[in-house]
Amino acid sequence: MNSLKPLLLSLLLSPLLSQANPKPLNEQLAYQLTESLTTEVGPRLAGSPGDRASVAWATKNLQALGFDKVWTEEFVTPYWQRGQARLEILSPYPQSLVLTALGGSVGTPANGIDASIVMFDSLEALIAAKPEQVKDKIVFINKAMTKDKSGSQYGKVVGARAKGAVEAARLGAKALIIRSVGTSSNRFAHTGKMTYDPAVPKIPAVAISVPDAQQLARVLTKAPEAKIKLQLDTQQTEDAVSHNVIGEITGSERPDEIVLIGAHLDSWDQGTGALDDGAGVGLVMATAALIKQQGQPKRTIRVVLYGNEEGGLVGARAYAAKHAKELDKHVLASESDFGAGRIWQFSTKFGPKSLPFAAEIQRELTPLQIQPGNNDAFGGPDVSVLKALGVPVVSLEQDGSDYFDYHHTPNDTLDKIDPAALQQNLQAWIRMTSKVANSTIDFRK
Amino acid sequence: MNSLKPLLLSLLLSPLLSQANPKPLNEQLAYQLTESLTTEVGPRLAGSPGDRASVAWATKNLQALGFDKVWTEEFVTPYWQRGQARLEILSPYPQSLVLTALGGSVGTPANGIDASIVMFDSLEALIAAKPEQVKDKIVFINKAMTKDKSGSQYGKVVGARAKGAVEAARLGAKALIIRSVGTSSNRFAHTGKMTYDPAVPKIPAVAISVPDAQQLARVLTKAPEAKIKLQLDTQQTEDAVSHNVIGEITGSERPDEIVLIGAHLDSWDQGTGALDDGAGVGLVMATAALIKQQGQPKRTIRVVLYGNEEGGLVGARAYAAKHAKELDKHVLASESDFGAGRIWQFSTKFGPKSLPFAAEIQRELTPLQIQPGNNDAFGGPDVSVLKALGVPVVSLEQDGSDYFDYHHTPNDTLDKIDPAALQQNLQAWIRMTSKVANSTIDFRK
Repeated sequence: MNSLKPLLLSLLLSPLLSQANPKPLNEQLAYQLTESLTTEVGPRLAGSPGDRASVAWATKNLQALGFDKVWTEEFVTPYWQRGQARLEILSPYPQSLVLTALGGSVGTPANGIDASIVMFDSLEALIAAKPEQVKDKIVFINKAMTKDKSGSQYGKVVGARAKGAVEAARLGAKALIIRSVGTSSNRFAHTGKMTYDPAVPKIPAVAISVPDAQQLARVLTKAPEAKIKLQLDTQQTEDAVSHNVIGEITGSERPDEIVLIGAHLDSWDQGTGALDDGAGVGLVMATAALIKQQGQPKRTIRVVLYGNEEGGLVGARAYAAKHAKELDKHVLASESDFGAGRIWQFSTKFGPKSLPFAAEIQRELTPLQIQPGNNDAFGGPDVSVLKALGVPVVSLEQDGSDYFDYHHTPNDTLDKIDPAALQQNLQAWIRMTSKVANSTIDFRK
Repeated sequence: MNSLKPLLLSLLLSPLLSQANPKPLNEQLAYQLTESLTTEVGPRLAGSPGDRASVAWATKNLQALGFDKVWTEEFVTPYWQRGQARLEILSPYPQSLVLTALGGSVGTPANGIDASIVMFDSLEALIAAKPEQVKDKIVFINKAMTKDKSGSQYGKVVGARAKGAVEAARLGAKALIIRSVGTSSNRFAHTGKMTYDPAVPKIPAVAISVPDAQQLARVLTKAPEAKIKLQLDTQQTEDAVSHNVIGEITGSERPDEIVLIGAHLDSWDQGTGALDDGAGVGLVMATAALIKQQGQPKRTIRVVLYGNEEGGLVGARAYAAKHAKELDKHVLASESDFGAGRIWQFSTKFGPKSLPFAAEIQRELTPLQIQPGNNDAFGGPDVSVLKALGVPVVSLEQDGSDYFDYHHTPNDTLDKIDPAALQQNLQAWIRMTSKVANSTIDFRK
């Protein structure tokens, strides 16, 4: 790949820094990396050729950025393929709807499933239904999602996606359709992981766009007897291979103490994964590289680019298992995986004695218009696996007001990133990471 | 279809009016009709089953609305079918792009066309190129469109869509890709009619979305040697049948004098044709029906719902040919076909002696925040055929700032219509049409 040339060039053009003579950082670096990944690799679903290309891209670019150590860690993962999908109202108003298979869904028989529809306004309403309402029908869960800055609404609607197929099948349904878990009125269907229960038959599960959900609801109001046909030819193999990609800036004084900053390298297949999570990849790579330009940190900064986050934190679990014996040397972990909006709040999950240091970090962030949060930080999806094992975490919380407009759709592309907002993110990440990596604080205490 | 019940019901609930005792109009009627058409018929490409369903829908609903005469006029039309389309970057950065065939395009061989790409920033730059730059390549015209209220930017970019394939083929190209003629950064490709020249080989022509055009331009900057593969399986038959649908409110004093208000019933196949032109259909049907509720007008109001506007004014030409002998009895014509934004300006194309009456109409419109325009009105695409034959026209000009965000995409759906803006349109159409239909002015003079 000739992708390295422009990146190397940009690093060379950006004057190398020393602590004695600091010079301006290349504030474009996170954007340049995100642009490179989303253009030269594009979609990178775990197990796919794009996934392999992203691992090669990350390895070469971490090396080109001057990381002290760069390596990959293999893990086995399911490889699910979307295939073709088609959803048609057969009668009384024939027309096609815009849909996408939910990640992990089984397909339909080749000639599809024809059925009438039963609509519910929530997963809870489905669970409360009687089998005779649902049996042999296609279940449609039509629950809207509202916008918010913090992402707190996601948890209120994502249950239909994650568990809807199991609950529908338990009552005898033939398939599940959900209104997309998303906040845009654009006609994109939002994919995302769904799960099965071994004790319940596996039925196909799809999402339709918000305008299509509104259309289907109108059709069912006019014609409750409407018939629909679903065709889906997904495929899954269980034993594909993927990799976490890791790059380190070795600590000058405490090289065995690890400050982990992460993002996930995989993306859904529909878009180019710019917001989810190309921006995060660009941010954490640039953060570590630019800190090194300022001078080697005291502690080691480890950038972990996780594989297969979207399929259910598969790379994150592999990392935690492989590094189980050195988790006590992970002094802190944090992840960027909520798009590219400005950071508006800083939260921690520290032991009580470390909270004064949280305030010290906050003082560095306040000039970037970042307010103090609480001491119950999430940390990020992959990093939450480490948090559950006792690793302290922080969250640089992004404004996600528009995140679910694009999340898991074909519309998650580079143009949705505001370079100025990404620069603000980069500054915050550098300040937080540098402060932690040059300290001696034990955040567990 | 049971679609008639809610419409009849809404008419009955809306108290019938008499001139002696006027009562409030049903201001929702245009929206209700648009909702009914886009839900119960959906896409209605000329020659398709949806087209036939729309003709049945229009006939029944004009009858249900109490029009004095309702009839259809058959014409022969080409029937073009989109089929499947696929565009992949093969090397060096394999990925799929979001595309759509341009209307009327031929397909590719079944195994597609593989070629390198030559990019131009405009149709003019392509025309100025040398054959050796273009021969055996796929031409990519990457011209951006800017937003404006009046739609005046459309003419500056649509040439690449209409004539690009001819100019590219003249220089030996294998296919044409254009950046969508659209103003949104959403990942939808905008279709639209293209044309061939019998003297030049027919090559396939497609549009890619704006984010995909930006992506392809970035790829070509990094890798000018990039290879691409296009597969397209469009089909066309020449002798399909479609219909204009016509409804009249017969004039009480001058029944032979026709005030024609029109819209087009057909739509592109990707969306449900809400903005283009379901809103127009709803508006002109509601206008005539609600005027009749106020009392029979002196002149006849003829609602013409044109077939196959999108394929090149096929229905409009058929209407002009069939009614050639009574065109001098068409005292005025006007069309609603620019979405559902608020009307902001009123323009005429009258003889000079009628301009004082234009000012009288304007006085009715000013309270609706509509400003006076000029005496060089367009009239609307279908109605422009009549204008060329000497029929006076007016334009109730809509704010089209967002129109080309949705135009000819899958995203042209009912939710994009603001019911309040549509009500303002309806009020303006009723005031203008009623004023003209109750006058005796000869607008040719």
